[in-house]
Amino acid sequence: MERSEALAIVEPHLTKARFEHTVRVTDTALELADKYGGNLKTVELAAIFHDYAKYRDREEMRSWIIHEPLPKDLLEYHHELWHGPVGALLVEREVGIQDNDVLSPIRWHTTGKAGMNHLEKLVFLADYMEPGRAFPGVDDVRRAAKENLDYACWMVSKNTIRYLVSKNQRIYPDTFHAYNDLTKMLEDNKWREAING
Amino acid sequence: MERSEALAIVEPHLTKARFEHTVRVTDTALELADKYGGNLKTVELAAIFHDYAKYRDREEMRSWIIHEPLPKDLLEYHHELWHGPVGALLVEREVGIQDNDVLSPIRWHTTGKAGMNHLEKLVFLADYMEPGRAFPGVDDVRRAAKENLDYACWMVSKNTIRYLVSKNQRIYPDTFHAYNDLTKMLEDNKWREAING
Repeated sequence: MERSEALAIVEPHLTKARFEHTVRVTDTALELADKYGGNLKTVELAAIFHDYAKYRDREEMRSWIIHEPLPKDLLEYHHELWHGPVGALLVEREVGIQDNDVLSPIRWHTTGKAGMNHLEKLVFLADYMEPGRAFPGVDDVRRAAKENLDYACWMVSKNTIRYLVSKNQRIYPDTFHAYNDLTKMLEDNKWREAING
Repeated sequence: MERSEALAIVEPHLTKARFEHTVRVTDTALELADKYGGNLKTVELAAIFHDYAKYRDREEMRSWIIHEPLPKDLLEYHHELWHGPVGALLVEREVGIQDNDVLSPIRWHTTGKAGMNHLEKLVFLADYMEPGRAFPGVDDVRRAAKENLDYACWMVSKNTIRYLVSKNQRIYPDTFHAYNDLTKMLEDNKWREAING
């Protein structure tokens, strides 16, 4: 599927601001893939469709989670977490994309998880650092993204946990597993100097 | 077992400073039990022995974890987490205390866990807030402890996660489960005003 066709499919599902975010995530993910590798067409499609279900009715999403093979524990957590897994399902059902290399970055883009694969990391990171984002610490993530993909993903994961705890929100297990897994990876790679610096 | 006998057993296993901490934890736990309930003799013994294994040789503790029915994933985390579970084992084996109401607060005093029981909460909280502690935020915990036991334990759990993330350390799953569980409990009890205030 060509970029223009994919964008034309996703556009009606998003607000104008969210569509512009999607285009920026796509360009950022492609820049990362250009630097770190990854099939450009696959990365492009995953990024274009990553927020496909963002504005689905909450009760519709709840129903998909209940009736389809999606993790039921999502229902116990903030509904903001639902559009990734539901989005991967609906991109397969409604758009007809069956390539799991496209679907899994959509599924995991909000929480991350332990053992993210390369394309999952690219979209996870691009969604956080695209040029329209103004999170505290995002410039540090952008600098890290020029140096090391895992290190930049670790910073995203760390910032996310700090943010959730500061807001007194529960942390979805995969968010926490992503942080522990990336921290372990960086420890094993003797990145402690970089982390502690 | 009387207080003086228990203190005499634990004292040789601790540094002088740690023994003084133990006495303060014991008095703090008794004050909390006086306010919130709990068998005073049981609380007292759990508090006196909570750091029993604190200065055990690291390789000895590793061996206990490997060869006894203790969670093996402890070995993948900071050795500071080992003395609780190993301590509960050794207090049973070496001191001969078999009452699980004494042993389980020892086991969980560092990490907490989801679904802590009343005595586990008392020791978990007392260990954090005894008057010798000077952690950032500890005075807020002391104020909360005058109002609500769960709320105070939630603050301990939240502070612990913030601290670990600020130090780029991995978070043991039970530490994270304790935070999520207490956050959920406070949400369900409509404590959001207090949390957000």
